[in-house]
Amino acid sequence: MKDMQNQKLDGSFKLTRVGVTEVKKPVIVKRPNKDVTLIVDFNLFVDLPAELKGSHMSRNLEVLSRVIDDSVRESVSGLEDLGFKICQELLVRHEYATCSEVHMSADYFLERGMSNGNTSLESYRLKASAKSIRGGQTKKCIGVEVMGMTACPCAMEEVRARRGITDENVAMSITHNQRNVTSLSLEVPADRPLEADKLIQIVEECLSSPTYEILKRADEAQVVIDAHSNPKFVEDVVRDVLRSVLEKYKDLPDDVRVQVTSESYESIHKHNAYAERDTTMGELRA
Amino acid sequence: MKDMQNQKLDGSFKLTRVGVTEVKKPVIVKRPNKDVTLIVDFNLFVDLPAELKGSHMSRNLEVLSRVIDDSVRESVSGLEDLGFKICQELLVRHEYATCSEVHMSADYFLERGMSNGNTSLESYRLKASAKSIRGGQTKKCIGVEVMGMTACPCAMEEVRARRGITDENVAMSITHNQRNVTSLSLEVPADRPLEADKLIQIVEECLSSPTYEILKRADEAQVVIDAHSNPKFVEDVVRDVLRSVLEKYKDLPDDVRVQVTSESYESIHKHNAYAERDTTMGELRA
Amino acid sequence: MKDMQNQKLDGSFKLTRVGVTEVKKPVIVKRPNKDVTLIVDFNLFVDLPAELKGSHMSRNLEVLSRVIDDSVRESVSGLEDLGFKICQELLVRHEYATCSEVHMSADYFLERGMSNGNTSLESYRLKASAKSIRGGQTKKCIGVEVMGMTACPCAMEEVRARRGITDENVAMSITHNQRNVTSLSLEVPADRPLEADKLIQIVEECLSSPTYEILKRADEAQVVIDAHSNPKFVEDVVRDVLRSVLEKYKDLPDDVRVQVTSESYESIHKHNAYAERDTTMGELRA
Amino acid sequence: MKDMQNQKLDGSFKLTRVGVTEVKKPVIVKRPNKDVTLIVDFNLFVDLPAELKGSHMSRNLEVLSRVIDDSVRESVSGLEDLGFKICQELLVRHEYATCSEVHMSADYFLERGMSNGNTSLESYRLKASAKSIRGGQTKKCIGVEVMGMTACPCAMEEVRARRGITDENVAMSITHNQRNVTSLSLEVPADRPLEADKLIQIVEECLSSPTYEILKRADEAQVVIDAHSNPKFVEDVVRDVLRSVLEKYKDLPDDVRVQVTSESYESIHKHNAYAERDTTMGELRA
Repeated sequence: MKDMQNQKLDGSFKLTRVGVTEVKKPVIVKRPNKDVTLIVDFNLFVDLPAELKGSHMSRNLEVLSRVIDDSVRESVSGLEDLGFKICQELLVRHEYATCSEVHMSADYFLERGMSNGNTSLESYRLKASAKSIRGGQTKKCIGVEVMGMTACPCAMEEVRARRGITDENVAMSITHNQRNVTSLSLEVPADRPLEADKLIQIVEECLSSPTYEILKRADEAQVVIDAHSNPKFVEDVVRDVLRSVLEKYKDLPDDVRVQVTSESYESIHKHNAYAERDTTMGELRA
Repeated sequence: MKDMQNQKLDGSFKLTRVGVTEVKKPVIVKRPNKDVTLIVDFNLFVDLPAELKGSHMSRNLEVLSRVIDDSVRESVSGLEDLGFKICQELLVRHEYATCSEVHMSADYFLERGMSNGNTSLESYRLKASAKSIRGGQTKKCIGVEVMGMTACPCAMEEVRARRGITDENVAMSITHNQRNVTSLSLEVPADRPLEADKLIQIVEECLSSPTYEILKRADEAQVVIDAHSNPKFVEDVVRDVLRSVLEKYKDLPDDVRVQVTSESYESIHKHNAYAERDTTMGELRA
Repeated sequence: MKDMQNQKLDGSFKLTRVGVTEVKKPVIVKRPNKDVTLIVDFNLFVDLPAELKGSHMSRNLEVLSRVIDDSVRESVSGLEDLGFKICQELLVRHEYATCSEVHMSADYFLERGMSNGNTSLESYRLKASAKSIRGGQTKKCIGVEVMGMTACPCAMEEVRARRGITDENVAMSITHNQRNVTSLSLEVPADRPLEADKLIQIVEECLSSPTYEILKRADEAQVVIDAHSNPKFVEDVVRDVLRSVLEKYKDLPDDVRVQVTSESYESIHKHNAYAERDTTMGELRA
Repeated sequence: MKDMQNQKLDGSFKLTRVGVTEVKKPVIVKRPNKDVTLIVDFNLFVDLPAELKGSHMSRNLEVLSRVIDDSVRESVSGLEDLGFKICQELLVRHEYATCSEVHMSADYFLERGMSNGNTSLESYRLKASAKSIRGGQTKKCIGVEVMGMTACPCAMEEVRARRGITDENVAMSITHNQRNVTSLSLEVPADRPLEADKLIQIVEECLSSPTYEILKRADEAQVVIDAHSNPKFVEDVVRDVLRSVLEKYKDLPDDVRVQVTSESYESIHKHNAYAERDTTMGELRA
């Protein structure tokens, strides 16, 4: 019987990425104090040389299944750790590939506390990936998406001017505020540990205010006051995250890639406001 | 050759809805001053008796194509008008069906003006449907989805109390505000004209403030002030829409179905606040 | 300080549903052999009388948090069990409400085996809900969404006729086949146990073939042969599920509501084929 | 009054992209035989220097509104033409920016005919973008997303082997086939005309078969036979598109970027099969 995928081609083209998308699997990740189950969306790819007709797609699923099964015994410390193992195994099983790649995303939850001691369980989104070059380096990327709140400094200023408010006690004028989603991701060598929880904390500290699922009346007022004491454009959020990354990751080498995006679902518009910086630690230090 | 769909079955079950979903077509609608092109998502269904194996699905697409083609010549005044014609034609072509049904949705745009004369083109969502019973009535449903803004009355009161504000001049305290989507739909007999633009206007007047794509600095302050002068829960929005429908459609009979929903994408939470009333004109009048 | 929500209204309207949507929480469910973590999307509602301005939204989140925390200690056997407890607690906390309602959905995974003994972990979607009336009954609804495969009987017949195939050995002609999503849900009294795994099995047995994440070459051929030996319209799938429900739930009372939908993402069209039956056990038995 | 956006910053960071997302507007495009209304989703960005606090977001909407209004008078030949004008105007209005960027996508419809003369209106997705550098070049990117059908060559071969079919007359064995979405985009200098309709045609010719909204029984059999006569992996689809681009755009310079992706919604799996090539005309010619 013919092996269709192994058929040899003449004068064809190599392919950058061949693989499977929208694979969903539960993964257990060992955290300091407990095991966490993540429901992960996976995309897995290898490249394909010009002379081979097809990639053996089922091997991607076998690799995924095996690495996830192993993770139950061998303790995986995070998605990017899993990504590293998957990339290695993809290169073993796809002997014709020169590189491999995996993208993962999952809901993630952390207990969050307000200054008054009240807590609630908040949801975030993890986005991790890994890329391996045969005989070369593996890089991993750890990213977080954090939902929070921005209050607009421009409308605040404008309203104060309109209403002739100069008294510092009412400095905190009304303005539009809204839901915001800010993401931060860092691409580092595979052996560099990086903690998603720390990235989430960096982002939350740079918003006008974090948001909470449970807010009693007094908590709600406090969040509103916090946000209005700290009005921010999406531009401010991105820059404050960049500044915090610079301070908190002094040891990261210059070639580490840093991506920050911030999108506000404007309450006064039907469109969103957006800011982004795609850079390296080296450029930020310059 | 066997006609699979016409195969006779014994002891099987009738089906409530059989048809096609996610059909997308451009439709030209004649409005008072101009022709408007809508890109419409269609779902079309008929019922199927227990003794027939299959519905002739391709007839749904032929009906759709024919009615849309005709609409170019014969002037369709709106989606619900189109829905009526589709339902009639579905019953003609599916001779075995006792009822037919079509659901439509489309983006829609209106020029909107602020009190200072500035205007911008705002987007809305139309949702229309029609149902026909063979030998009986056709009902049509016209619905609109309107994006706007709500400012929370509870947090406003709470902040005022916290900060000891009693002066009426600063009555308009800070609060959380956010994007809101409110829908209104009415189900009426097929021959009762109903204007989607009027439904949009009703909803926009019931929000804390409409929102605009283009706001210069002074406009932005005005929208913020308007919204804070008019704080509303989602409950308030739904009730105000109900009240407005009662006033503006005094002539609608008691059995007309009225559905109103309002969802606020809370700026202080990661979840949404939601209110809904599903009722009839008669119940509202009681 | 004014309690805005408790403000009394005159001549206003009651609301059918007031609450929160798009709340996401991890829940641990005790299954026969193991604990399973589900990441659940929740919508929670109560009704609101005409004379009350607002519902206390934060209570919904407190109820959710408490019931989920309790579930860690007290063993929840499934989403619908959780739904029952949430509905009860919502009525306790919203003393003004006459009814409560919760909707839940979550990814779910089962190990599935082919006839040759190969297995893979397959993903499904659970959809459960519960409704309570104060002083009355609680009903729960358990539903599953199953992705599988349909092969079209009509095109198969047509191709055979076109190519003059009468030989029974090549009865299995080529046809179009495609991804299909079929759902089944049953609404039963709260004290009636119902197993989602059994609903999933019923649906999978009614498709042209189940689908699998890992298929080696011989497995793949087998799935293709199975699907073509068993061609089905969406109408067939819905009816076969109804028949199977009748046989496997003989003890369910006549007033149990049964909903079945089947949607094929047609490979030869850009739209989907759809069939649905919304009925009761009593009607099915008639 | 302070102009918040114009506030000067010290020691801050430049931003790569600042602007607005999810803006929706109707646009009229002049085609050879008629005017076509597209409902376009826009994202607009400029960069922001380190020393400026904020970008003037409302200018993006004013630019968009003006360019679209002008298009009614001045005849825009396509989305990428519109993109060029928007990029130019963004640089005029954002005097601090060194580059501007716009991304657009819209549903698009073409009448398609089968070999027997039957036609139906088919839907596609256009994706266009443009980038301008102040004092430098503007590049535009024209892309199309085409839904069609793939039939798997591997399962076909496998089934033939399993069933011992060697007769050439039944060469066309059963296999799994499914919905596929393939995209092609080319990035060219702004003054190079490129026709989206031609890109759509290239892609449709490279699938196992195009798909059609209206298929009478004989048409349906023909599409099934066509697809099975022409089985293709996603890898084959991408390579055939690359080959066709090479042949049909011999005049395009070496630095033109070419991106092709193909994703099959596998009927036998719950995940998708995916192939991609991201390259240049020069690399393809090498």
